[in-house]
Amino acid sequence: MNLTGEMLIGQQAVKGSRSPVQAINPATNELLEPAYAGGTQAEVERACELAWNAFDVYRETSLEDRARFLETIADEIEVIGEDLIERAVAESGLPKARIQGERGRTCGQLRLFAKTVRAGEWLDVRIDPAMPDRQPMPRSDLRQRHIALGPVVVFGASNFPLAFSVAGGDTASALAAGCPVIVKAHAAHPGTGELVGRAIQAAVKKCALPEGVFSLMFGSGREVGTALVSDSRVKAAGFTGSRSGGLALWKAAQSRPEPIPFYAEMSSINPVFPLPAALKSRGAEMGKAFVGSLNMGAGQFCTNPGLVIAVKGAELNTFIEAAGEAVKASGAQTMLTPGIFEAYESGVKSFADSGKAQEIARGQKGDGPNQCQTGLFVASAQDFLGNEALQGEVFGSTSLIVECANTAELTQVAEHLEGQLTVTLQMDDADLEAARELLPTLERKAGRILVNGWPTGVEVCDAMVHGGPFPATSDSRTTSVGTAAIFRFLRPVCYQDLPDALLPAAIKQENPLKLRRLVDGARES
Amino acid sequence: MNLTGEMLIGQQAVKGSRSPVQAINPATNELLEPAYAGGTQAEVERACELAWNAFDVYRETSLEDRARFLETIADEIEVIGEDLIERAVAESGLPKARIQGERGRTCGQLRLFAKTVRAGEWLDVRIDPAMPDRQPMPRSDLRQRHIALGPVVVFGASNFPLAFSVAGGDTASALAAGCPVIVKAHAAHPGTGELVGRAIQAAVKKCALPEGVFSLMFGSGREVGTALVSDSRVKAAGFTGSRSGGLALWKAAQSRPEPIPFYAEMSSINPVFPLPAALKSRGAEMGKAFVGSLNMGAGQFCTNPGLVIAVKGAELNTFIEAAGEAVKASGAQTMLTPGIFEAYESGVKSFADSGKAQEIARGQKGDGPNQCQTGLFVASAQDFLGNEALQGEVFGSTSLIVECANTAELTQVAEHLEGQLTVTLQMDDADLEAARELLPTLERKAGRILVNGWPTGVEVCDAMVHGGPFPATSDSRTTSVGTAAIFRFLRPVCYQDLPDALLPAAIKQENPLKLRRLVDGARES
Repeated sequence: MNLTGEMLIGQQAVKGSRSPVQAINPATNELLEPAYAGGTQAEVERACELAWNAFDVYRETSLEDRARFLETIADEIEVIGEDLIERAVAESGLPKARIQGERGRTCGQLRLFAKTVRAGEWLDVRIDPAMPDRQPMPRSDLRQRHIALGPVVVFGASNFPLAFSVAGGDTASALAAGCPVIVKAHAAHPGTGELVGRAIQAAVKKCALPEGVFSLMFGSGREVGTALVSDSRVKAAGFTGSRSGGLALWKAAQSRPEPIPFYAEMSSINPVFPLPAALKSRGAEMGKAFVGSLNMGAGQFCTNPGLVIAVKGAELNTFIEAAGEAVKASGAQTMLTPGIFEAYESGVKSFADSGKAQEIARGQKGDGPNQCQTGLFVASAQDFLGNEALQGEVFGSTSLIVECANTAELTQVAEHLEGQLTVTLQMDDADLEAARELLPTLERKAGRILVNGWPTGVEVCDAMVHGGPFPATSDSRTTSVGTAAIFRFLRPVCYQDLPDALLPAAIKQENPLKLRRLVDGARES
Repeated sequence: MNLTGEMLIGQQAVKGSRSPVQAINPATNELLEPAYAGGTQAEVERACELAWNAFDVYRETSLEDRARFLETIADEIEVIGEDLIERAVAESGLPKARIQGERGRTCGQLRLFAKTVRAGEWLDVRIDPAMPDRQPMPRSDLRQRHIALGPVVVFGASNFPLAFSVAGGDTASALAAGCPVIVKAHAAHPGTGELVGRAIQAAVKKCALPEGVFSLMFGSGREVGTALVSDSRVKAAGFTGSRSGGLALWKAAQSRPEPIPFYAEMSSINPVFPLPAALKSRGAEMGKAFVGSLNMGAGQFCTNPGLVIAVKGAELNTFIEAAGEAVKASGAQTMLTPGIFEAYESGVKSFADSGKAQEIARGQKGDGPNQCQTGLFVASAQDFLGNEALQGEVFGSTSLIVECANTAELTQVAEHLEGQLTVTLQMDDADLEAARELLPTLERKAGRILVNGWPTGVEVCDAMVHGGPFPATSDSRTTSVGTAAIFRFLRPVCYQDLPDALLPAAIKQENPLKLRRLVDGARES
């Protein structure tokens, strides 16, 4: 495996000169070679300059050329082969099968965006033809299409070293929209980042695109990240990570002379509501399945079910007992980084220290470093409502069950929740009315509502919403997973009375791209 | 005319108790009865509470019911008859024909949004059906629709007392999206605001909607406006007005514990680029037409052409001479308010005082108060680039011609411009290459690009973009005029594996709303 520890600025490989980071194998706490030195302000400016210079050309590439570029990135990632799997496993502590699946998802995602680009619906072409004889005023010829916002900065996430990182959903959707991308690599998996970055760099060259279409930088979020977000040539950013980190960068983006969209996906505890009839008919089965979801990836998912909200009683007790048994049987799992492990331990301790949450069960302790021990706690609704410590996200396999005295209290807890990525109902037919009453609240709280499933596992497709009201994300109007993510990086432009020779292909009269346009208020078939 | 000076909070009429404002007839400087006292914090909270209580019901009204509500508002506005025209003329100083036209535009806009609501494309329905047998993992049934964001606060503009005010574009698009609206009335036309507000209040009652769907409040932007934008139940806001006012409220919206979208349409100088061949073939004609656009509505349009950028020479001189003659012949016009008149005078003075802009001509002086005297100035490109005083918006009929030494300097000036609502090219066939070279810059700078027209006059239609990069607006991803404005007030929600009985109509399996859904990646015809 040929890792150099260099940043990728356009087609160059550049050794940084600021304090270096090295990945740690969390399963052993060993340092992994090489060291990745951070970029300087001059290197930030160089990456932004290249991106800016590439922008006008890249945003006007044909649908076919842009789609092929995305497909070429996927091909180049697959070409890396086992080296990528091996390095990502070493840097993340995640099982090999999971990383293999994530590579498939990452490449599938790039190919899905290629399909979306070719379909061209994202151009949202609207044409209101001229009406020269209209009274009292003629109408001009008006044509709208969407164009890319400009260079985009992407902050990779720790928990998906492939699917939410260098060539992940944010990068894929920004490139699909026609935006050059500068990735600020995550310090937890720099080697994986370099390998994937070199794949994108190679794809840029193969497709003969301007080199500034992609750069990869290393360095701290506070320094390099803030410098990137503050550069006037950067026009949007995507982020997946902690609430504090996301809000700090969001503030930097809003404090610029020209504020820019900053899409931060930050924190969510993904409440699950087991309704009475479902609890009665299958409480034990449900408790076990719930712990299965809780333990996936050591609970290190944005959509990990961190909260169960239900009405107290014998039925709920059955659920709790079964869940407790499953927790006790849960093996320890390696967490992503020592920092995440420490934060998890401290989060679990804050539950225990609150004096308001009772421990139901803990999972098995692990032997090595950074081992996540599953946890399950219970608290009354009133104690939950009165204690902020119980309301925060604990990133990892620990969940809190909130016992409500009755349906009214359950509704009160639901209304009190902050914005979420997901909410889940477990229900039987007899719960339909209760579900119907709860639904408006859930719609206001979350981007995705599930019935009789578990929130972990996010399908990459057209209908997915991985988003939700603040603080789940900084902008509830969008999604960061699925093809609708492309809309985050576009803006509409209207062309009035332009000669056909000057019009972009998408809105030329003869419709060379064969788009289904909205013409004079009617959709073309 | 029965004006009471009351606020409208739901179905109540409430006399405010904070310092009152009275409209001024700008043509005479006479005060107009009655006085409008401002709302208190308690009244702000009452309006927000009612809006919040109305939200879940209103956002789920059927497409037909919501469309009829918008049409009923239009009907009720027309029922007011001459009283509305008379009052709006008195409060704005605008000619009667203009106000009559604006009423037509306002009602037409409401009816166009009714059509948009019925068509249902804004729901953006996407369905990825379950694939229970997929390997290695089954796919769930995933369905996406858009829902309303929540209660919206609308700040009326001074310059369109009907079309951008109480029942203007922001209100129409927010109501169309399913959001209750609280309007903070503009102090310049409170009587017009009350009349239109009562029309909406009557429509709410006729359509048997929850009363909180609409409220109208009076008071200062700094007090009542900030209080409204800061209320946790408000989820978005629309604003048209000054850059300083817009940015202050935008900051309040971003400083909330839960930041919200704040759509401010603020300032634009709408540069016009007469290209060489066009200048040569029709410089004089163009100069005259340009002044016609400059004088429309005393220049009090967001899209007023405040800047002309061209290459120096005999051809440009012909344009300047003809424009100068037209300016000299321009009659004075009453401005909207004494405050706007003062700001205009001071803006014109700052051109004169800069020592860098030469006066080409001034229009006729008026006799009465608040008379806008047209102005035309010229400056060199280097002086323009070096003087911020020359780069700001002067709201009113004054424009600055920037003379460039050559095409390279013209491009430099174009690249230096801030974000704009519009840019205009005046071109002949022989200018095609020059236009093609300039187009990428113009696309990055503006929301609408015109050829051989003038930016004043904004068509309300599907293809319109009345928006643009900062500081033209606070959010370039949208438009505040035209049917796409509805997207500002929506967010996507994904429903995973919900039983059909629990699904909203838009995404039920049998497609009762007959929408063209995106199903499994293909658009239904």
